[in-house]
Amino acid sequence: MRTDGRQWNQLRQVAITMNPNKYAEGSVLIEFGDTKVICTASVEERVPPFMKGQGKGWINAEYSMLPRATQSRNQRESARGKLTGRTMEIQRLIGRALRSVVDLQALGERTIMLDCDVIQADGGTRTTSITGAFIAMAIAVNKLSKTVDYGKYPITDFLASVSVGVIQEKTLLDLNYEEDSKAKVDMNVVMTGSGKFVEVQGTGEEAPFTRQELDGLLGAAEEGIQSLIAKQRDVLGPMGSRIGASRI
Amino acid sequence: MRTDGRQWNQLRQVAITMNPNKYAEGSVLIEFGDTKVICTASVEERVPPFMKGQGKGWINAEYSMLPRATQSRNQRESARGKLTGRTMEIQRLIGRALRSVVDLQALGERTIMLDCDVIQADGGTRTTSITGAFIAMAIAVNKLSKTVDYGKYPITDFLASVSVGVIQEKTLLDLNYEEDSKAKVDMNVVMTGSGKFVEVQGTGEEAPFTRQELDGLLGAAEEGIQSLIAKQRDVLGPMGSRIGASRI
Amino acid sequence: MRTDGRQWNQLRQVAITMNPNKYAEGSVLIEFGDTKVICTASVEERVPPFMKGQGKGWINAEYSMLPRATQSRNQRESARGKLTGRTMEIQRLIGRALRSVVDLQALGERTIMLDCDVIQADGGTRTTSITGAFIAMAIAVNKLSKTVDYGKYPITDFLASVSVGVIQEKTLLDLNYEEDSKAKVDMNVVMTGSGKFVEVQGTGEEAPFTRQELDGLLGAAEEGIQSLIAKQRDVLGPMGSRIGASRI
Amino acid sequence: MRTDGRQWNQLRQVAITMNPNKYAEGSVLIEFGDTKVICTASVEERVPPFMKGQGKGWINAEYSMLPRATQSRNQRESARGKLTGRTMEIQRLIGRALRSVVDLQALGERTIMLDCDVIQADGGTRTTSITGAFIAMAIAVNKLSKTVDYGKYPITDFLASVSVGVIQEKTLLDLNYEEDSKAKVDMNVVMTGSGKFVEVQGTGEEAPFTRQELDGLLGAAEEGIQSLIAKQRDVLGPMGSRIGASRI
Amino acid sequence: MRTDGRQWNQLRQVAITMNPNKYAEGSVLIEFGDTKVICTASVEERVPPFMKGQGKGWINAEYSMLPRATQSRNQRESARGKLTGRTMEIQRLIGRALRSVVDLQALGERTIMLDCDVIQADGGTRTTSITGAFIAMAIAVNKLSKTVDYGKYPITDFLASVSVGVIQEKTLLDLNYEEDSKAKVDMNVVMTGSGKFVEVQGTGEEAPFTRQELDGLLGAAEEGIQSLIAKQRDVLGPMGSRIGASRI
Amino acid sequence: MRTDGRQWNQLRQVAITMNPNKYAEGSVLIEFGDTKVICTASVEERVPPFMKGQGKGWINAEYSMLPRATQSRNQRESARGKLTGRTMEIQRLIGRALRSVVDLQALGERTIMLDCDVIQADGGTRTTSITGAFIAMAIAVNKLSKTVDYGKYPITDFLASVSVGVIQEKTLLDLNYEEDSKAKVDMNVVMTGSGKFVEVQGTGEEAPFTRQELDGLLGAAEEGIQSLIAKQRDVLGPMGSRIGASRI
Repeated sequence: MRTDGRQWNQLRQVAITMNPNKYAEGSVLIEFGDTKVICTASVEERVPPFMKGQGKGWINAEYSMLPRATQSRNQRESARGKLTGRTMEIQRLIGRALRSVVDLQALGERTIMLDCDVIQADGGTRTTSITGAFIAMAIAVNKLSKTVDYGKYPITDFLASVSVGVIQEKTLLDLNYEEDSKAKVDMNVVMTGSGKFVEVQGTGEEAPFTRQELDGLLGAAEEGIQSLIAKQRDVLGPMGSRIGASRI
Repeated sequence: MRTDGRQWNQLRQVAITMNPNKYAEGSVLIEFGDTKVICTASVEERVPPFMKGQGKGWINAEYSMLPRATQSRNQRESARGKLTGRTMEIQRLIGRALRSVVDLQALGERTIMLDCDVIQADGGTRTTSITGAFIAMAIAVNKLSKTVDYGKYPITDFLASVSVGVIQEKTLLDLNYEEDSKAKVDMNVVMTGSGKFVEVQGTGEEAPFTRQELDGLLGAAEEGIQSLIAKQRDVLGPMGSRIGASRI
Repeated sequence: MRTDGRQWNQLRQVAITMNPNKYAEGSVLIEFGDTKVICTASVEERVPPFMKGQGKGWINAEYSMLPRATQSRNQRESARGKLTGRTMEIQRLIGRALRSVVDLQALGERTIMLDCDVIQADGGTRTTSITGAFIAMAIAVNKLSKTVDYGKYPITDFLASVSVGVIQEKTLLDLNYEEDSKAKVDMNVVMTGSGKFVEVQGTGEEAPFTRQELDGLLGAAEEGIQSLIAKQRDVLGPMGSRIGASRI
Repeated sequence: MRTDGRQWNQLRQVAITMNPNKYAEGSVLIEFGDTKVICTASVEERVPPFMKGQGKGWINAEYSMLPRATQSRNQRESARGKLTGRTMEIQRLIGRALRSVVDLQALGERTIMLDCDVIQADGGTRTTSITGAFIAMAIAVNKLSKTVDYGKYPITDFLASVSVGVIQEKTLLDLNYEEDSKAKVDMNVVMTGSGKFVEVQGTGEEAPFTRQELDGLLGAAEEGIQSLIAKQRDVLGPMGSRIGASRI
Repeated sequence: MRTDGRQWNQLRQVAITMNPNKYAEGSVLIEFGDTKVICTASVEERVPPFMKGQGKGWINAEYSMLPRATQSRNQRESARGKLTGRTMEIQRLIGRALRSVVDLQALGERTIMLDCDVIQADGGTRTTSITGAFIAMAIAVNKLSKTVDYGKYPITDFLASVSVGVIQEKTLLDLNYEEDSKAKVDMNVVMTGSGKFVEVQGTGEEAPFTRQELDGLLGAAEEGIQSLIAKQRDVLGPMGSRIGASRI
Repeated sequence: MRTDGRQWNQLRQVAITMNPNKYAEGSVLIEFGDTKVICTASVEERVPPFMKGQGKGWINAEYSMLPRATQSRNQRESARGKLTGRTMEIQRLIGRALRSVVDLQALGERTIMLDCDVIQADGGTRTTSITGAFIAMAIAVNKLSKTVDYGKYPITDFLASVSVGVIQEKTLLDLNYEEDSKAKVDMNVVMTGSGKFVEVQGTGEEAPFTRQELDGLLGAAEEGIQSLIAKQRDVLGPMGSRIGASRI
């Protein structure tokens, strides 16, 4: 039994509020337990310089935490004058993960910028961000589809993410902050609706892990992610119906 | 009649959600119409270097907008590597305003840091921030009072703020974004519960204004602020009872 | 009686040296007592990116203090790698104030950059800067008028600024540094030659102020500013004759 | 057959030059084919602020590429004024990986800083860096052991790293730059001498991958890493004899 | 004959205004023709970290140009967020040059910071700065001598600097801006009152120079510098009497 | 006799490895004793903004030291976020020196960027860099000559550099680190193959120097440089044959 009463392979309570932001092309407030992230998708009719003239679009992501999202206050990165390595790592991960389920050719020369702002952090902020950013992006792409005639629907599959870890030889799904700080092995997994891996990032800084432990972690993550994708389908409703349609 | 149907001297709908953040010593989600700001108060048992050893406390504030708080997306100040002049101006204003109703001696050698993060912006973000930050600070000071024995209660008065402006020769209270961008004169006023001015900042970049117009603006602001302070008293309830007690 | 022997409503000795700089299109060394500021106006035949293609000009300002302009030496902002909030606030104020008396359409697509460099500071550096920058700008616009055929003269009115404050319940005009650091209320006022307000910035960080005090401050400022504008007319001579001509 | 004639599971030529730097406590020039990295270990008798007073040591790493290490010249990060996200990600990875085989308590309150400078890059710079940095660290810890009496030898196991990828449905070991840019799946694996995983970072930005592909990649990586560790044992000779001694 | 009518070995008009700044421990406004520099000396009762605890003092210098000191306006280094290489080079030169005539032991653990701010630039700003900074430093050291009992007078010799160059095969002393931009060889020389060299910096970017040309330049510089030192002695009067006393 | 057994006018062992880098248009590993620098020349088919449209090329240089190139580790400039004054000064010197022997018109609108990265530092890193960068540039210009038809060969002369200094009244050539830190006078000289001076930078921070000492230093430098240029001719072989051909 875990401190919050969950089974080892049980997700925290997931809550999704659609379109909390009146300006963004797509937005979502997503909660994994006490971790709360606002994800907005902003469509810009231009691409970064390195993508110009290729007839393809781009997906980018930025990630930030409010200074008091955490137990003790953190200095703002704007006040420090630069991003931490952790922030850069996370926002690169989010962007890469989302691009894996977007057909950039079909999107056309435009950028969708996903902003993930952590309002409150209780572990798993990057996996919550990826899972929420997918929804915000899906809303924006659907909205665009009313004015843009995509040849092929640009989103090729669903995508979600969850963390798994090992504490005292036990595999646990969806760690909260307290569990995360005790875990000897910590892994973040991103998967698609069709059950393929997009990112597998496992770290055993405190203690290296065996192949058998790795297998256990991947199995738990897979189950958790499919459950998250079911929720995504649910909240998107008809907006999700064309996702990956051309893939099958 | 204004575009949103309000009278010239009518505030927008004000909504205050107490303690939305589980970690901060005090927090509030405050809404002036579609302008939404999360204000958190963080108590730190130290003071900035320039205040050390004086036996006095300090109140500081930081202000930021989420990149898509606005109609079109703004670049993050953390990504730019520096704060804009506008941000600096606003956070200096918030800090100064709040310090005017705090007895720093009574607070003791500790800092209360007020973070005002604009989730959605529709005009008046600085006045909403000041009005909300006061509540977050009041919650934190009240919480501290359970463990710290203040000789004198550190908050000496209530404090709120509102914007006023002139559009087509008419004085308007609490401008929304559309009104703000049309106003020829724009003024932010901060006042105390006892009806004194803390800050008066009026700007006629588009057109200079007469003494008579100034008088009209100040009158409208005063009325609006007293109405905001009534709401603050209401949500704070018993937590507000000691504010300014020693003053009277 | 004040420490320097002035009456409560008396300005410090104002000295204006015309064109101390041999390169700038307009320049002035202005002194309010021991506060000395070099103001230069540089005309550039381009406008900032956000103004391009509108057929309008722009007025911008930068402000800085020499490191030993003050009693103890301040670190250079260039060495710190960023501007302080105070500097940003002041240069935004100067630019905004000057733009209020310029018809940007009449100016045409060019920028006048006003640099205000404080050589020695004894209180009132921002008001001295505004008052001096107006003169430097007027010299530059007049010089330009010899080669550019303005349809309408671009400067629409005179403009000057002064500080006022309350010390021990008394209203004082044009505070020096010593007075400034003792003042409970501190206000900077910018007005036009036709007696309208452009900026009113009053702060009661140390002690909130009443409506009656505010009225006293505004009255004193008005008188002081009209006296400063008389000096501007005087030093500009014929160069000032077309200012605001079309306004009357 | 690969473009450079290797078998799918064959490492590039590995060359290790011991102690090329006359000042560092440990140094190595390591080459994986045309990828060349200088790794130096610098011992400092202090720890970072967040580790102070715990009686424990710290291992840190920094990574950089010479501007012309690559086919076309890259701007220096010192000239840009900040590190790229890629650099931050890599140096965080190197530090984390090395800490996993160091008993920080046994090391005592000192820091070993590992600098990995890429002289020439042809794919796999992060895996080459980790494999080389381990050797430089081992030399430095051995040198320290002559003057410091460790209760327990601080290095608990060998450690090396290699990349694996999938190109045209085939698993390949130790990708060079050309292969890396064609790979649909790209994975970096760090393992210990005792065959446990320390880091598993797999990315399928171009195309998600199946569990079966993941298994194939892990198997190839394991084999490659054990072969690299054999080379490390070889060049370290007696200096490697105490590594992990207490573990078995 | 030169464009301004000077002989080839004639200095421009040198003007020195003593103590233009009411706060600094020493200050001077120095003019070499149209080049005008304000030099202030600020005494701080501390030394930089790398000098602590050695019982010795330090001399440091900073150099800056007002944005419109030059024919066309330059961006402020504070706005750019960093110093240019040129500025760094010049301020390092000024500091090094002045330290060569100061006995840091005799100065005691304090720093004299010399700020050289160029108000107007017409060539030779670094040589004007060194010559003026020496005077400002001498005033400050003399002032200090009234409260501090130096065992030995800290200033060991006079010091001044001048530029020389070659234009159309002719050696010229003290180049103005127009000459400087035409010169094929450009040299700055710093010498002491006793006729020794402190800095010799000659550059032939446009055309390398012969040993004979070098000899001619050094001769002209020597003569010019001794003439500048005579002026320094003159304006310092009795304040200069102890300089280098112990040396002879 | 010097600590390393050299005569006063003897260079350290010079070793030159041609083309150690497989990507750069020209590269060299140059060693003056234990000082080791990798110099690469990168040709870019564009010029900096200030050179555009003049039909001329540009030569630029950057200089950096690996953090453990020195006895104790230095912080990376990329981590500090800015270049030190020393680095800026050195890279400006290298660029200026090389430009003095290049006919920018003949080079055409392209830039050659010279990167000098110090792998190990034992004094004289800037002189070693200049001497090596010349060779890397010569290789690149020769390589370019196979595809570009220069009217005139762009390199007009050979160029090398050496340091000289005074220790205990003795002139010494090519100082190592230990000698450099003891020297009272320190001078870097850059000369051409035809025996002309390009840069003379002498500093007597510790003790001013006489004209006679200066003459001795210049003589020693001249001899050392001609010996370095002989080595350059040697390693360049036929690639050096067109250098300065048009000059004679």
